[in-house]
Amino acid sequence: MEAGFEFISSGTITTPGGFTAGATHAGIKKEESLDLAILASEVPCVTAGVLTRNQIKGAPVVLCQQRLAGGKAAGVVVNSGCANTCTGEQGLADAREMAALAAETIGAPPEQVLVASTGVIGQMMPMERLRTGIKQISLSRDGGHEMARAIMTTDTVPKEAAVKVNGGGYTIGGVAKGAGMIHPDMATFLGFLATDARVDPGFLQSALKEAADVSFNMVSIDGDTSTNDTLLLLANGRAGNDVISSGTKQAEAFQQALDGLCIHLARAMARDGEGATKLFEVAVRGASDRAAARQMARTVVSSPLVKAATYGNDPNWGRILAAAGRSGAEVVESKVDLYLADICLLKAGRPQSFDHAEAVKHLNKTEVTFTLNLNLGDGSAVAWGCDLTENYAEINSHYTT
Amino acid sequence: MEAGFEFISSGTITTPGGFTAGATHAGIKKEESLDLAILASEVPCVTAGVLTRNQIKGAPVVLCQQRLAGGKAAGVVVNSGCANTCTGEQGLADAREMAALAAETIGAPPEQVLVASTGVIGQMMPMERLRTGIKQISLSRDGGHEMARAIMTTDTVPKEAAVKVNGGGYTIGGVAKGAGMIHPDMATFLGFLATDARVDPGFLQSALKEAADVSFNMVSIDGDTSTNDTLLLLANGRAGNDVISSGTKQAEAFQQALDGLCIHLARAMARDGEGATKLFEVAVRGASDRAAARQMARTVVSSPLVKAATYGNDPNWGRILAAAGRSGAEVVESKVDLYLADICLLKAGRPQSFDHAEAVKHLNKTEVTFTLNLNLGDGSAVAWGCDLTENYAEINSHYTT
Repeated sequence: MEAGFEFISSGTITTPGGFTAGATHAGIKKEESLDLAILASEVPCVTAGVLTRNQIKGAPVVLCQQRLAGGKAAGVVVNSGCANTCTGEQGLADAREMAALAAETIGAPPEQVLVASTGVIGQMMPMERLRTGIKQISLSRDGGHEMARAIMTTDTVPKEAAVKVNGGGYTIGGVAKGAGMIHPDMATFLGFLATDARVDPGFLQSALKEAADVSFNMVSIDGDTSTNDTLLLLANGRAGNDVISSGTKQAEAFQQALDGLCIHLARAMARDGEGATKLFEVAVRGASDRAAARQMARTVVSSPLVKAATYGNDPNWGRILAAAGRSGAEVVESKVDLYLADICLLKAGRPQSFDHAEAVKHLNKTEVTFTLNLNLGDGSAVAWGCDLTENYAEINSHYTT
Repeated sequence: MEAGFEFISSGTITTPGGFTAGATHAGIKKEESLDLAILASEVPCVTAGVLTRNQIKGAPVVLCQQRLAGGKAAGVVVNSGCANTCTGEQGLADAREMAALAAETIGAPPEQVLVASTGVIGQMMPMERLRTGIKQISLSRDGGHEMARAIMTTDTVPKEAAVKVNGGGYTIGGVAKGAGMIHPDMATFLGFLATDARVDPGFLQSALKEAADVSFNMVSIDGDTSTNDTLLLLANGRAGNDVISSGTKQAEAFQQALDGLCIHLARAMARDGEGATKLFEVAVRGASDRAAARQMARTVVSSPLVKAATYGNDPNWGRILAAAGRSGAEVVESKVDLYLADICLLKAGRPQSFDHAEAVKHLNKTEVTFTLNLNLGDGSAVAWGCDLTENYAEINSHYTT
C-alpha cells in the first residue's frame, strides 16, 4: 500500500464529487470577513463525528451528538464569532433554527443538517444577522475555499486540502481551523471532511477516530477539550465504489489517505500557531506502549520551555528531558536517546558532544524535529506544535546561552 | 483555635531559635547576585521533606531522598544557577561534596547536610567556584534574609516570613523561591522551613505534606513536577515544648500555623509571577470531594485564557466555565454558581445581569478572587496564580470587549 494516495492541487472539502459549499459575512464577527458557511451534499451522507469531551458543551455540539446518533446528514452550517455555549435552552433552539434555515438552502430535511460554532462563550447567537446571512449564501462546487476562510478565527491562513486514493476512484477533502496553540483563545478546533466514497458507517466512525488520534489530537493540547470542538466526516457514496468495510485492503487504503489528509491539516494548524515562526515536531519511539508515547509526545510538544528554546535556537535538551519526566509516561533516564533531526544529543541518558553550530542550523529551519527513543518497548507517536515567540519567549529562550 | 498564630515582623527562616544562615556570590549565576547559601541548626533536627514527583530528578533531590530516610539533619546547602540535573554519577558525587563542604561550616557530620539546587539542567556543577564560595559564607542569626535572596532566580522579590504560635512558645520561619508561573523557566520550586518546636517525626512529615497541599501545590502547576522541587522543614526542638504529636490540640495549632506560613509564601510566589500585575485566586466550593475541588481550582487558575481575561479586566466568565469543564472534575452546568468577589456572574448555570463597571473595578484590584460553587458536595479548595500580561495577553484579553 505504498504511495496509496496523493494530494490534489488546490484541493478542498468540495473537491469530492457531489459536494457544494458557500459562505458569507453575516456580521457575527466584527471584522469584515466571512463568518458563516454551508456545506451541502446532493444526497444524504453516511456521517461520522468526533466531538469535545469537555463537560461544558456548546449547543451545536449537543445537537450534533443527537443527530449523529440519528442517521444520515446532508450538510453542515458553521459560523465563527459566537460559540453558542452556556446559552441554555435558547441556545439549543437557536442551533436548531440555524440547521432549519440552512436546510432550505441545502434542500434537505432540517434534521439532516449538522451545526458547528466557534467564538465567544456565553453570548446568544445574533439570530437576526444569521437569518439574513444564511439567505445570502450561494453554494458552488468550489465553495470549499470560502468555507475554509469562513471558519477562521485567529488563524492567519485557511487550511484545506484533498487527497485522491490511487485506484480507489474516490477523493477525500477537508477544511480545518486551528486552536490558538500559544494563546488558546478561541481554541475551538473545527474540522470538516467530505468524501464521495461509499463507506460502511461503523468503519467510517472508527476510521475518523483513528485519524483524529494521529493528527488533530496530537496538535492541540487544549483542542480536544474546548467546549465546541467538532470534527465531522460526510461520505455521500457518489463515487459508486464497493462499500468500504473494516478489515479490508480498501479500508486500509482509505485509512491511510484519511490519516494523511488529517495530518496535513493538523501540521498546517500547528504551523499557524499564533506568533509561531516554525513547525515543531516531537517523535517518541520505544515507549512502553502507544498510549505512553502519545502522552509524552504531547507533553513535550506543549512545554512552554521546550517551545521557547526552539524559538531561541537553543539546543537545551534538558528541558525536553524534564518535560518527558513529568508526562506521566514511563521514562528511565539511563536508557533515553534524544536526537535533534539526526544529531544525537543524549545517548543512554548521557549528554553527547555535538556540533553546536550544526544544531543551531537545524533549529533555524522552519520545521524542527526532536526524537526521543525511550528504549523501553515499541510504542511510538508523533506530536506537532510551534515555537513560542516574542515577549513570552524573551526571558526563556536564551537562558543557557 | 482561632487566631492561633501571628506573623512576626521581618520574620525569616532564622527567626526560630538555634538557626543561623549565610550566603555568598559564588559565581554560579552570571549576575552579580547571591547564589549560594547555607542554613544551619545548632543541634541536629527532626526533618521532613516533600520532593518532586518528576521521574527525572536532580542529583540533590536524590541525595535528599536518601538522607531524609536516614535520620536527622543539621543544615542545608542550596545554590541557584545550576540544577545539577541529568549529570549522572558525577552529579551525585558533586552534591555529596557540596554537603561535605557545608558540613564543615555548619559543624556537623556530612550526612546530616541536605542539598538543593535550581538552575540550568544538564550542566555540571562548577565545583571550583562552589568550593571557594562555601568558604566565604559566614553564618549569622539574621542570615535568613540573605538565604531568601540567594535562592532567587526569576523572582523579583525575596519570599520570607515567620509565625509565632500563640501560647506555643515556638516559632516557624521560612524562605521560598517561586516557579516562573507564566514562564515556567527555572520553574523549580524551593522552600525551606525551620522551627524551634519539638515535633514528633511522623507528625512533622504529615504536617508538611498537608501544608504543601493547601499552599505551594495550589500555586504552581508545574511546581510539583519540575526536576528539582524541594520543600524541607527542620525542627530543632530548642523551644523545649512538649513533643507535638498527631491528634492533639498542639498538633492542630502547629498545623494551622504551618499552613498559614506556607500559604503566605505561596501567595507571595503567585504575586511574583513573571510579568504579573495581580494575584489571582480561584476558590472552588461544593465540589463532589476535596480532590475534585483541588483539580478544578488548579485547572482554572492556570488557564491562560482566564489569566489573560483577568489582566484585561474582562469579566469573561465563559472562560472560567470552559476551564472548569475540562478539568476532569465533575461539573453540572445547570448547578454552577460563579462569583467575582461578591458579584454573582452565574447562578445555577444561568448568566446573571451584573454591574459591568463594578466588575471591572474588582478586576482592577491587585488581588482578584473568583469563587465557583458547584453545588454537588462539600469539597473545597483554593488555588493561586497571577494574570497573563504583555504580548501574550494582547491578543486574548480584549476578545469579548
